[in-house]
Amino acid sequence: MKEMIEKLKKRIRDVQDFPKPGILFRDITPILLDPEAHRLASELLYERYSGIEFDKIAAIESRGFIFGSVLSYRLGKGLIPLRKPGKLPWKTISQSYSLEYGTASLEMHVDALGKGERILIIDDLLATGGTAAAAASLVERQGGIVEEIGFLVELKGLSGREKLLSWPVYSFLDF
Amino acid sequence: MKEMIEKLKKRIRDVQDFPKPGILFRDITPILLDPEAHRLASELLYERYSGIEFDKIAAIESRGFIFGSVLSYRLGKGLIPLRKPGKLPWKTISQSYSLEYGTASLEMHVDALGKGERILIIDDLLATGGTAAAAASLVERQGGIVEEIGFLVELKGLSGREKLLSWPVYSFLDF
Repeated sequence: MKEMIEKLKKRIRDVQDFPKPGILFRDITPILLDPEAHRLASELLYERYSGIEFDKIAAIESRGFIFGSVLSYRLGKGLIPLRKPGKLPWKTISQSYSLEYGTASLEMHVDALGKGERILIIDDLLATGGTAAAAASLVERQGGIVEEIGFLVELKGLSGREKLLSWPVYSFLDF
Repeated sequence: MKEMIEKLKKRIRDVQDFPKPGILFRDITPILLDPEAHRLASELLYERYSGIEFDKIAAIESRGFIFGSVLSYRLGKGLIPLRKPGKLPWKTISQSYSLEYGTASLEMHVDALGKGERILIIDDLLATGGTAAAAASLVERQGGIVEEIGFLVELKGLSGREKLLSWPVYSFLDF
């Protein structure tokens, strides 16, 4: 397990000053390009979540789709796409959240889950936690239960977990 | 095969007047919610592309990520994310394309593929073909060869194939 994690960490590329000066961005695209690394990432998620009971996976647009979709396929669980405003065509609920400057929001189809369903939320990376908190709120507003919020990577320095204290959170790699 | 396709078609939801009045939108999210349908969609892609030789899969943001990622995992091929402007953190090339009103563009990391690599481009739906044509141009500008552009769904009425005459195109379901 530790070895898998070290291998994956080596496939994350540091990009200085993205998206703006002073920010060190952790780029996961080299993991995707390398079939072995992509498989390792999938194995990490599979190992953990094949041992936990839940009903559906909610994946956060758009890199969360990449990891959430493979997990959904492997575990045979329905996949709920949580999307940016205006992208989901049917009836939605929307949850806004604060960014450093201004606000953003996330949407979910109202028929995506039923009351009492246990939902695993998946995203690639935990930074400030705002998007994931909005995702968890969407699930709960429709009567769902957040089984866990799982991130492939966690950036510890940004204290994202402080926004997610109401829910179980797990990450596989951290920086 | 025909039976699989009919089952999948029943899981596509028609949404009238989205994204604007007069448009009938084909919503694939019910496929994702239903594990059996999601698996069928994956099987269709797997059956075709496990029999074709190529090097990597380029998936178009963001619903292309959902199907491209599972195929990448199953076939053990690297996954290239083609993204909207400003999303990829490292060095990119960009290709603009026309929309009904105005233009949009798609980006790819410059190290995503090497000269002569054979690339399968995946997206969920062929409508007007503009995004897929931009994707194919990005691949070729970096020296790659477009092995095929594969869509889960094709909307025949919009003549998207006319924009894609330079490349092999395949779709699994059509309306």
